[in-house]
Amino acid sequence: MTKLSTDLRHSLVLKSRPSGMPEAKHFELKSDPIPTPGPGQVVTRTIFLSIDPYMRGRLSDRKNYAPSVQIGEVMTGETVGEVIASADPKFAPGDIAVGARGWATHLVSEAASLHKLNGALAPLSTYLGVLGMPGVTAYSGMKDIGEPKAGETVLVSAATGAVGSVVGQLAKRAGARAVGIAGGADKCLFAQEQLGFDACVDHRNDDLSAAIADACPGGVDVYFENVGGRIQAAAFGALNLFARVIMCGMVAQYNAAEFPAGPNLGFTVAKRVKIQGMLVFDKPERFAEWRELATPWVLDGSLAYRETVIDGLENAPEALAMVLSGGNFGKMVVRV
Amino acid sequence: MTKLSTDLRHSLVLKSRPSGMPEAKHFELKSDPIPTPGPGQVVTRTIFLSIDPYMRGRLSDRKNYAPSVQIGEVMTGETVGEVIASADPKFAPGDIAVGARGWATHLVSEAASLHKLNGALAPLSTYLGVLGMPGVTAYSGMKDIGEPKAGETVLVSAATGAVGSVVGQLAKRAGARAVGIAGGADKCLFAQEQLGFDACVDHRNDDLSAAIADACPGGVDVYFENVGGRIQAAAFGALNLFARVIMCGMVAQYNAAEFPAGPNLGFTVAKRVKIQGMLVFDKPERFAEWRELATPWVLDGSLAYRETVIDGLENAPEALAMVLSGGNFGKMVVRV
Repeated sequence: MTKLSTDLRHSLVLKSRPSGMPEAKHFELKSDPIPTPGPGQVVTRTIFLSIDPYMRGRLSDRKNYAPSVQIGEVMTGETVGEVIASADPKFAPGDIAVGARGWATHLVSEAASLHKLNGALAPLSTYLGVLGMPGVTAYSGMKDIGEPKAGETVLVSAATGAVGSVVGQLAKRAGARAVGIAGGADKCLFAQEQLGFDACVDHRNDDLSAAIADACPGGVDVYFENVGGRIQAAAFGALNLFARVIMCGMVAQYNAAEFPAGPNLGFTVAKRVKIQGMLVFDKPERFAEWRELATPWVLDGSLAYRETVIDGLENAPEALAMVLSGGNFGKMVVRV
Repeated sequence: MTKLSTDLRHSLVLKSRPSGMPEAKHFELKSDPIPTPGPGQVVTRTIFLSIDPYMRGRLSDRKNYAPSVQIGEVMTGETVGEVIASADPKFAPGDIAVGARGWATHLVSEAASLHKLNGALAPLSTYLGVLGMPGVTAYSGMKDIGEPKAGETVLVSAATGAVGSVVGQLAKRAGARAVGIAGGADKCLFAQEQLGFDACVDHRNDDLSAAIADACPGGVDVYFENVGGRIQAAAFGALNLFARVIMCGMVAQYNAAEFPAGPNLGFTVAKRVKIQGMLVFDKPERFAEWRELATPWVLDGSLAYRETVIDGLENAPEALAMVLSGGNFGKMVVRV
C-alpha cells in the first residue's frame, strides 16, 4: 500500500462483519478533509493506535457490554495524539493527549474525554499499554477482585500480553508466587526472565492440568482470566479454597459463532470460589491512580513491558488478527 | 418397624455408598448401650434431627468441602437434644442443646461444640431450620455476597425450602422484589401467600427462561442458587449488569455420577457478574447474630417458615430422599 497523504483524514470504517477472524477485507479505508473542532472539541493527529482483544466484540452484533461498531462507522480504539486544533480552553495545538478513539489519522473528541500528557516522562506508546488501559485493567482486577496476599499463588493466562505481564509483576510486588500461561517457549522464557514470573506454562502442552499443577505446587489462589476455553478448564481445576477468579476476557472464543459450554459450577460451592467479571471503565478513578503509581516503575525499569509496533493505519486489521491469534508479543500498537 | 427401645442407643451407620438416590438399604440400624461422657463431654438424647441436602455429599467419596462419612460410621447431621449426662461444668442434665451431630438417639459431644437453648422462646425444631443452619445460610449469603438493595430483584431457587424461604423474606425486608422458583403450583402459591414473595415461577414450566423474564421484568440483581441444572441456566440468562450470584448448593446434581457442563462464563465479563460460593460454617459468628436478629421475627410471626416433620430415626433415609427429590415442603426434620 502506498503511503497515505498527510493532508487528508484517513480512517478505517467497518465494511462487513467478520464471521471468524477479522481481516483487511472487512474494513474500508476512507479519506476525507481533516475535520475542524466544534465548541468544546479538540482535533488530534493520531500518533499511536492501540490494538486490543476487546475490539473483536465491537465487530460483532452480539450483545456485549458496549455497543457494536455499525457498518460504515469508523472502528473504535484508544489513541495517543497531538492536538492540531482546539475549540476548548484546556487544550492548545501541540499538546499531547490520550483518550481520542478511532482507527483514523485524525480524530475529533470532546475535550472532557481527553487526558493531557504534556511533560509525560514515559514513552508515549506506554500510555496505551503498561500505563494505559491494559495496565489499569491488571491493576484494577488485582486490587478490586484478586487481592493477592504474600505467599499466595497468582496464575494468569496470556501472561506476556499487555494485561498479563502487569498482573504477574503486581503479584510479585504483593509477595505472591506468579505463574503465567503463554503460547510457546519464547513467551514462557520472556515471562520468567524479563517479567519475573516464578514459572510459566506453555499452553500448547498436551497435559495442561499436570503442567499447571507442577508450576503451582501450592495450588492457585488468584486466577486472572484472559483466555477461556481449555486453559480456563485447566486453571479452574487447580483453584484452592477461597480462590478469586478475575474474569477479564476470554479471547479464545472471540471469533466463535457459538460459545462452548463452560465448567460445572459445583466447585464454587465446595471451594467457596469467587468468580467476578470486570471492565476497566467501571472504576475510572483507577486510571489516574495507576499512572501515578506505575510511572516511576516504568522510568526506573522495575516494571517491565514489551510492545509490538506495526507501522501504518492500513495495517490495523492485520494487527488485530495477530492479537486474537496470539501472534503478537506484548502490547500491540500501530504507529499511525 | 417396631418402636425402638429407649434403654439403648440406636444409630444409623453407613452400610454402602448410594450411586444415585440414597435409600434405607444404604444404612444399618445399630443398637448399643447408651454412652457415658468423658471429661469435657456431654451426652444428649436427640429430640429433633435435621435433614438437609448437603448430606448427600457426605455419602459420596467424591472430594468435597467436608470429609465423607466412612462405611460403618454413624451418618452426620445437626440435632437438638436434651442433656442426659455431662462431664463439663457448663452443661447439666435437663439442659437443651443444639450442635450434637449424628443420626442417633444419643450423642456424645465436646461441650464446646454445643450451644445451650435453655429458655429458648421459639419451638425447638426451629433451631435446626429457620433459626438454625439453613436460616443462617440464607442470612450469611445475603449479607456477605448478595447485598440486595431496595428496588433490586432477588431470585432464589428452591424458594420454599429451608434456605430459600428465608432468602425471599430477607429480600423483602431489604426492599427488594422477591421472586422464587419452586416445583409445583402448591409451593408457588405458598411462596406468594405465606412467605410474601412477589412472584414464584414453577420450574416444571416448559419455557423457564420466559417465565423468569415475566416474573422479573427488571431483570435479576441477586440470584441465590440452591439447585443448579436447567434452573441455573435460565436464571443466569436473566442476570443484570453487576448481578451477584450466591452459590449455596446445586441439589439437582447431588445424585449424579458425573457433573454436567455448566455455563460459558463470557457473560460474567460482559455483565460484570460476581459468582461466589459459600459455606455457612466459614463465618460462625453469623449463627449468634442471626438467632438474635430473627428470634423476635419468629415469635411475632413476621418471619414465616414451614416444616415437614417425620417421626422415627429409622425413617431418616427416606426423609433425605424426599429432600433430594423436592418431595418435602419446607424444612425437613425427624422427630427422634
